[in-house]
Amino acid sequence: MNKKSLAVGIDIGGTNTKFGIVTPDGKILEEGRIPTTNYPHITDYVDALYGHISPIIEKYKDQAPIRGIGIGAPNGNHFTGSIEHAPNLLWKGIVPLAKMVNEKFNLPCVLNNDAKSAALGEHKFGAAKGLKDFIMITLGTGVGSGIFVNGKLLYGNKGDAGELGHTVVRYNGRLHWSTGLKGTLEAYCSATGMVLTALELRKKYKGKSLLKKYKRKDLTAKAIYDCAMKGDKLARDVFKFTGTVLGEALANFVMFSSPEAIILFGGVTAAGDLIMKPTKKVLEKHLLTEFKDAVRLEFSQLAQNDAAILGASTLV
Amino acid sequence: MNKKSLAVGIDIGGTNTKFGIVTPDGKILEEGRIPTTNYPHITDYVDALYGHISPIIEKYKDQAPIRGIGIGAPNGNHFTGSIEHAPNLLWKGIVPLAKMVNEKFNLPCVLNNDAKSAALGEHKFGAAKGLKDFIMITLGTGVGSGIFVNGKLLYGNKGDAGELGHTVVRYNGRLHWSTGLKGTLEAYCSATGMVLTALELRKKYKGKSLLKKYKRKDLTAKAIYDCAMKGDKLARDVFKFTGTVLGEALANFVMFSSPEAIILFGGVTAAGDLIMKPTKKVLEKHLLTEFKDAVRLEFSQLAQNDAAILGASTLV
Repeated sequence: MNKKSLAVGIDIGGTNTKFGIVTPDGKILEEGRIPTTNYPHITDYVDALYGHISPIIEKYKDQAPIRGIGIGAPNGNHFTGSIEHAPNLLWKGIVPLAKMVNEKFNLPCVLNNDAKSAALGEHKFGAAKGLKDFIMITLGTGVGSGIFVNGKLLYGNKGDAGELGHTVVRYNGRLHWSTGLKGTLEAYCSATGMVLTALELRKKYKGKSLLKKYKRKDLTAKAIYDCAMKGDKLARDVFKFTGTVLGEALANFVMFSSPEAIILFGGVTAAGDLIMKPTKKVLEKHLLTEFKDAVRLEFSQLAQNDAAILGASTLV
Repeated sequence: MNKKSLAVGIDIGGTNTKFGIVTPDGKILEEGRIPTTNYPHITDYVDALYGHISPIIEKYKDQAPIRGIGIGAPNGNHFTGSIEHAPNLLWKGIVPLAKMVNEKFNLPCVLNNDAKSAALGEHKFGAAKGLKDFIMITLGTGVGSGIFVNGKLLYGNKGDAGELGHTVVRYNGRLHWSTGLKGTLEAYCSATGMVLTALELRKKYKGKSLLKKYKRKDLTAKAIYDCAMKGDKLARDVFKFTGTVLGEALANFVMFSSPEAIILFGGVTAAGDLIMKPTKKVLEKHLLTEFKDAVRLEFSQLAQNDAAILGASTLV
């Protein structure tokens, strides 16, 4: 990599798409965003990306060569360069986005899964810097993961390794709203899952609780957090349960790949100790003796908006 | 590796130790065994190995150079060359076996975990030949595993990756007899676990069954197999349940590392379709759509006694 070259990183989310132009040492020189949902047709979306990003490229290309464009996307497959059957995006089926962006911009373009991009960003610039073996868990609307083994991102045979959000942690447990699987990590530990937990617990809770004042549609992970910070017992129980299930799942992951660290990332981690403490406690409890106290459990060190942009920029 | 060189492979089991002298293409020229349990002191054990193996080395060393000695052992750590806190061996604590054997034989010696050795053997000579990503599950007295990713055995940060037998598959389930963990794969799908399942099912089974004729101490995995082969419904139910739990666990493993194949190995696999059919069915049922029908589930292609000897021989 040219020490002075720049790369564009694009982070596609279900709601917003964020992008930035990034230096090799992880400095974002300029960034922007467009609403992903405004473009039901993928060609319009690629046009919009071009409309917003090409002026930035023009502005910086005389300072340093532009290496290319890296994209992190939900259900992005690094092997094929396509977004494949993404339930949370408007574009259905298989979308050969890397090829389309490459042809539009006339620059090399590499695509990856969003959680894998975040793991790449964390490895290059954040809490996992220099680690050979770690697992990044993204706790947002869904639960994703990026796994590093032997210093490299784990892709597996078909590029889709690391779907840890869909592993079962509670046999015959809560039905997942879109996959049809029961008792999966995402069904409990995503922001969506936390709301379901709050509804379940609220139904049988006899005492007073701030959570009881919320209508179904206004009850969000953020609302649960706000109530918990005001000392609400029921809201705190939601975090305790979420951390418990997460800790159980993490113990299984540790015994699979023996990582040096697990990095938690995403909206749910804004809750800090509310989620960290129960997770850590239950993780340790479920480990075989030889793994106890051997794995660091930490939050991401990168700003929420930046990790995936940074990670995507390292793809090229 | 010298094309004509030979290596010694040693497979340490809780009951017997098997060894052989192996060609680079996986032919065992001569093999032997000693009872592991006859040597409560590790120095006596190393002396016994020397007494039995050095004559074989003498016999072949003029035909081809001897590269060294590879050892597969329960709780063997490749990074340290030691057997560490093995619950199923007489030698307690940390045993620096690779160093001891090296000094005794004056030959290079490399040690590994027994399941990892079997995976190495399968990768070099068996059903996993040429595969970059696969998982080997050993179903014997215990449940072990060896995981290949990117064409290499997965060790993780401390050399102890792949303790899949100790991952939890049924939350708050059956207590494991030695680890204290609840609902782990080994608690159900080892030969020991199958006997516990048979006892549980027998207690509530109203109908006639051959299994009811066995005393507690005579009820083994082999006995369950024999009854199942005679068409006994209860015995078949034991295999069905074992395969169900195994299939659930394998689905989680697939979504972790996206392997091309899962290879089942060890005593329990002698049951053939009795274990394969329910496992395969439940595995597919628990996979995310993108993983369905994408992973081969197969039995090992190496003789039970040979896989670990062959794998150990490839260590040097």
